[in-house]
Amino acid sequence: MPRYRLTIEYDGGPYAGFQAQDGLPTVQGVIETAVTAFCGQRVRIAAAGRTDSGVHATGQVVHVDLDRDWPAETVMNALNAHMVREGVAVLDSAVVPDDWHARFSATGRAYLYRILNRPGRPALERGRVWHVRKALDAEAMQAGAMHLIGHHDFTTFRDLACQSKSPEKTLDVARVIRVGEEVHLAFEARSFLHRQVRSMAGTLVEVGLGRWTPDDVRQALAARDRTACGPVAPSDGLYLTGVTYPSA
Amino acid sequence: MPRYRLTIEYDGGPYAGFQAQDGLPTVQGVIETAVTAFCGQRVRIAAAGRTDSGVHATGQVVHVDLDRDWPAETVMNALNAHMVREGVAVLDSAVVPDDWHARFSATGRAYLYRILNRPGRPALERGRVWHVRKALDAEAMQAGAMHLIGHHDFTTFRDLACQSKSPEKTLDVARVIRVGEEVHLAFEARSFLHRQVRSMAGTLVEVGLGRWTPDDVRQALAARDRTACGPVAPSDGLYLTGVTYPSA
Repeated sequence: MPRYRLTIEYDGGPYAGFQAQDGLPTVQGVIETAVTAFCGQRVRIAAAGRTDSGVHATGQVVHVDLDRDWPAETVMNALNAHMVREGVAVLDSAVVPDDWHARFSATGRAYLYRILNRPGRPALERGRVWHVRKALDAEAMQAGAMHLIGHHDFTTFRDLACQSKSPEKTLDVARVIRVGEEVHLAFEARSFLHRQVRSMAGTLVEVGLGRWTPDDVRQALAARDRTACGPVAPSDGLYLTGVTYPSA
Repeated sequence: MPRYRLTIEYDGGPYAGFQAQDGLPTVQGVIETAVTAFCGQRVRIAAAGRTDSGVHATGQVVHVDLDRDWPAETVMNALNAHMVREGVAVLDSAVVPDDWHARFSATGRAYLYRILNRPGRPALERGRVWHVRKALDAEAMQAGAMHLIGHHDFTTFRDLACQSKSPEKTLDVARVIRVGEEVHLAFEARSFLHRQVRSMAGTLVEVGLGRWTPDDVRQALAARDRTACGPVAPSDGLYLTGVTYPSA
């Protein structure tokens, strides 16, 4: 019963999030349906991160156990053929050891938050970016982001529905860069709290608009109070870009 | 009766091309409907390039004559507000002289053709790129493209339905560059024949796949024969990226 690691890209727009839900289109549901269509097996897949409704991925990682020893490339091509009408695609597949787990073996997650920062609204990238009309000060946002790096109690940036046992996390990377008409926010950590990235992104946009100072971010973090958070950024601009695992 | 120049971005996917057609959703129709919704006028707009069904634009230019002297920014914001459910957006607007014409004043058009060149099919960029699984040799494609630059009879790369009086055009730029997982083909000319860019892109992909040599492109051009063209690339990957005008 070989285990396959699959790297997945998806457009979160048409789906009610990653996780399977009865009667709703989900990314997990699409992949599991494709597995059944491919080999007749009914499976449950495990994923590195359960993204919210509307959140995209360019580097989600899942694993699935199959009954037969298919070549990894066959699994990828067959699943892609069965998902051709869906906004979900397999980018890579490999056979992994039985004790390898997409979620529990992961040692890092990387997210990108894309802001389209121009007066005109997006036509091509609608649903793929957060549109902020007023010019953002990316340097001020980076100065604010610096206060978030490190080991902290992130209660301020945690959704009230978050089920994590502890609000303490270590944020390794928080980088703000301007890319043409866009401002990109890159975050990396071993793991994140529920809505942590969107909470941080929305707060940093307040800094970029000049409504908050970079130091206000430090104070909001220190408050350990959800009500001290800025507005939560919309799901449209968020991408799970990669998951890291210890090399074998 | 002031004339407004509008720079337009659109997702060509949902539309039956730029040009208005009775009973079909078109980019022109969307913009004209938005103008009527904004100020009650029934107008006909003129565009720099009439893109085919499925072709996108990040820098299409149109002009429209309005009865009232609206500030240019008001026109842009109002049209965007009326197109919020459409894949069409105004990026810029300005008042121009009455004899300025989006199509006839244009002295250059720039197109980008995007190829996603990886084994896994696109999920996020489906409909926005041409997916070519096998690795393309971008250098060989560039070598082939060099033969197309200059003043030529482009009959080979011209759709049979093309209504241009002459098949002779001057291609100023034909550049092939690899950008991560994508291969980008950039073309610039004063004007293009119908389907010329997609005909050239499809032919250059034959070179990239090793089926044609770069010199075969030269020979195909010299044949002045539509049947000497490679397969025409799909509309999905094509973008009208900009139009140039003489500075006032």
